[in-house]
Amino acid sequence: MTQTPQPFQRLTIIGLGLIGASISYAARQHGAAETVVGYDASADVRRRAVELGLGDIAETVADAVRDADFVVLAVPVGAVGGVAEAIGPHLTAGAIVSDTGSVKESILRDVAPHLPEGVHLVPSHPVAGTEFSGPEAGFATLFEKRWCILTPAEGTDAAAVARVAAFWRALGSKTETMDAAHHDRVLAITSHLPHLIAYNIVRTAEDLETVTESEVFKYSAGGFRDFTRIAASDPVMWRDVFLNNKDAVLEMLGRFTEDLSALQRAIRWGDAETLEALFRRTRDIRRGIIEAGQDEPEHLKKS
Amino acid sequence: MTQTPQPFQRLTIIGLGLIGASISYAARQHGAAETVVGYDASADVRRRAVELGLGDIAETVADAVRDADFVVLAVPVGAVGGVAEAIGPHLTAGAIVSDTGSVKESILRDVAPHLPEGVHLVPSHPVAGTEFSGPEAGFATLFEKRWCILTPAEGTDAAAVARVAAFWRALGSKTETMDAAHHDRVLAITSHLPHLIAYNIVRTAEDLETVTESEVFKYSAGGFRDFTRIAASDPVMWRDVFLNNKDAVLEMLGRFTEDLSALQRAIRWGDAETLEALFRRTRDIRRGIIEAGQDEPEHLKKS
Repeated sequence: MTQTPQPFQRLTIIGLGLIGASISYAARQHGAAETVVGYDASADVRRRAVELGLGDIAETVADAVRDADFVVLAVPVGAVGGVAEAIGPHLTAGAIVSDTGSVKESILRDVAPHLPEGVHLVPSHPVAGTEFSGPEAGFATLFEKRWCILTPAEGTDAAAVARVAAFWRALGSKTETMDAAHHDRVLAITSHLPHLIAYNIVRTAEDLETVTESEVFKYSAGGFRDFTRIAASDPVMWRDVFLNNKDAVLEMLGRFTEDLSALQRAIRWGDAETLEALFRRTRDIRRGIIEAGQDEPEHLKKS
Repeated sequence: MTQTPQPFQRLTIIGLGLIGASISYAARQHGAAETVVGYDASADVRRRAVELGLGDIAETVADAVRDADFVVLAVPVGAVGGVAEAIGPHLTAGAIVSDTGSVKESILRDVAPHLPEGVHLVPSHPVAGTEFSGPEAGFATLFEKRWCILTPAEGTDAAAVARVAAFWRALGSKTETMDAAHHDRVLAITSHLPHLIAYNIVRTAEDLETVTESEVFKYSAGGFRDFTRIAASDPVMWRDVFLNNKDAVLEMLGRFTEDLSALQRAIRWGDAETLEALFRRTRDIRRGIIEAGQDEPEHLKKS
């Protein structure tokens, strides 16, 4: 049997939005860290974090990470490089640095060069979120039953990886370790492309000359509303995801539009068989997701 | 003040799936019809409808509509013409015929020619549904707070239209009347295109060689699961929608792919400004939908 890793003494969360705030609540609730220190680049967010009681809120990034044995960067993936550069000189030997970004190859590329020797980088991605952003949106149960994917580079200290995995499990998540490049392909299809499509259809609807905005609102229960939920996600976070996972997203998008052209052709030519056959196939996937505990059937939610 | 129209004496529902069964429960619960008669082309569904207590279940379509003052066709839009032809000779003068289809021009085209003189056609579309199909999926509150759109042809008896509107309002819906062609354009963007996109992305995910199905299930909370919900809808119903609203769907699809190409270009060239500007715009639409009462914020659902 493996020994259960020790909880962290001093957890520092950089970036106090939905994810950072939720980590703060969950880590303290589950005793996954003795002290929680928070920092956000925005003075306004720091003030709100104090009011919300998100931990000891530091006024500088250097103060925030001092003596921390675990530092989590919960900022948009385009910002991690700058944060890593800023905290690098202030990190304690033996500290572990992690993050929460939806893209992982770019984390290794942007963060690793700034960390001093003896500091371990264990990138992580909690696959969880809501349509809301900001510290007020955080809540302790956000990570429960959701997967958290760790993507340490080859040769990363095994004990550090185990401690990070144990941290996320303490917060209620299930953990998996995979190669960063594979992660970026998997998430390109399960998360990045869906967001792109959702943002796009909402824009298409908004630009129509013959259908009013009020009609789009009123009749959105026919399917459209499900897209608007994910299209309401944080704009800066998503801008950075697409800029930093370009290749995988463009590949998935290419496949998607190829498939869509085939569907378009089937509609144009009235090919009933092709349409029905496709629509039957997709039900099994839905069943798999519910069985995997990653969603509840809709009528249960509405009751 | 307008007089409240009389409830119906004898409501016949043809087609006992999710929608037909829900109408049966809701109509009796709200006293919108004194007697409810049901019929389904499938003997197995008729048997289950008897067990579920969905009303007096008739063994032939002719028996089902005999003496009915209100007949609702709750079958896929591709099937309404055949049903109309079968019931036409058995309808009582003065009866009102309605339906629940997601396409409305084709209803006027396929149903009207089969109705005898003195029978009123008032097509309706309750914009409501779940990811489930079949009589067991029905429930009385399905239509509450949702919109029901009526699309009577010009010159339709105003009293008949008022009675159908009053029926849906009795079931908890809000009603709106519009031209069938306009309805088909509005629904093409708020319902048909979202379903098409959802079916398509689920297929794209399923066809990947390098990402396993199990990975798609596990990490679906990143956005993908929202698409699988609507891609699990009834395959025959949706096949018929696309075959019968071809022009409007192809137009919306053309606009969507045009917009998607522009987004693809922005990703390829790293155009951060364009991406962020678009992602900001779409949040307002989400707010509008929640204010219009057509969805609840996600964290309320999850609590």
